[in-house]
Amino acid sequence: MTDTPPASSGPASSGNVTRVEHRVSSESRRKHNGHAGGVLWFTGLSASGKSTLAIETESRLFAAGYQAYMLDGDNLRHGLNSDLGFSPEDRVENIRRVGALAALFADAGMVVICAFISPYRADRDLARAAAGSGFHEVHIKADLATCEARDVKGLYRRARAGEIPDFTGISAPYEPPETCELVIDTNQNSVAASAEEIFRYVKEKFPLGLV
Amino acid sequence: MTDTPPASSGPASSGNVTRVEHRVSSESRRKHNGHAGGVLWFTGLSASGKSTLAIETESRLFAAGYQAYMLDGDNLRHGLNSDLGFSPEDRVENIRRVGALAALFADAGMVVICAFISPYRADRDLARAAAGSGFHEVHIKADLATCEARDVKGLYRRARAGEIPDFTGISAPYEPPETCELVIDTNQNSVAASAEEIFRYVKEKFPLGLV
Repeated sequence: MTDTPPASSGPASSGNVTRVEHRVSSESRRKHNGHAGGVLWFTGLSASGKSTLAIETESRLFAAGYQAYMLDGDNLRHGLNSDLGFSPEDRVENIRRVGALAALFADAGMVVICAFISPYRADRDLARAAAGSGFHEVHIKADLATCEARDVKGLYRRARAGEIPDFTGISAPYEPPETCELVIDTNQNSVAASAEEIFRYVKEKFPLGLV
Repeated sequence: MTDTPPASSGPASSGNVTRVEHRVSSESRRKHNGHAGGVLWFTGLSASGKSTLAIETESRLFAAGYQAYMLDGDNLRHGLNSDLGFSPEDRVENIRRVGALAALFADAGMVVICAFISPYRADRDLARAAAGSGFHEVHIKADLATCEARDVKGLYRRARAGEIPDFTGISAPYEPPETCELVIDTNQNSVAASAEEIFRYVKEKFPLGLV
């Protein structure tokens, strides 16, 4: 019988921790679910619409018969990432963990929708690498002025007043994708139109019933 | 549109990060999958049989029509927990993260099988609390002498030789469950018999088709 071997007190990646193989293949899961697993990674400024569109996408995909699940920055910061703040290094670790997590959900056969500001290009690339195939980066794009005008929670106002440090777009950088699979312009388009565009994209990339 | 609000550079739990509500309910997922989501938490010494039985359980459940997925200590230490070693504090953090992760999989409607030594009672209780309902602690029980005699990977031998620090059962403690949902004695029983016992238990606790 195999088991977890503590190799040393250093990180496992440097030790002799061996991988355990699942006996249920990705292909079996795909057949069972009627679609492949994968990652939809929504990136964008605060108030660009990521969470709203992620919720809408999860809902539409589920209704269409997909195994779909949303991971949202706010929710994860209450659980898995509750030990992390918003400093640059904590943001890196936040996204590193979410990337690894999303890869597990995709491996389990689900279409996982990740809604995270994820301001650094390098971190998003790391999430892409963790997922292997089936990673789709979606830029939820609205300019800063528009996001700041929305300011549903008053966070931009507080950031401008200096009450919130490291606020993306104000006092912390946002690196927009240079190349990504899909751009959704929420300056111009309504939630309904944006959600429809994402849904059409996913149905095309994750066709149902093709096994 | 709502979004991730950086509240401060401190941990989010102390800030004003708000939860985002899924629109797909647990009840809907349950109906779609034909069973509830939940956590099977396998704890036990190294070489007690956790991973072997977890793989077998994942395989049997999947074949029976369940959405089932195994999380294994070794695999997670290559991804999500690759920054952690085997010191007492890293073990605590390892299990804290896995507990949060397992809760997400259960929330997504899956039966997730977690195979982790998880030597500390308090950490397992934390994983239980994270999952809310549907958490089943399974003690994969074999005495140290038996596990050491198996020693498939030669880790006990190396631990005895002082080459591996903090090795559970040798130079680090294992706190067996005082109360848990199921005890599987792998001293006495074969892999096949143990797997059958777990499978029967899960079918009873996660009945198929009862929605």
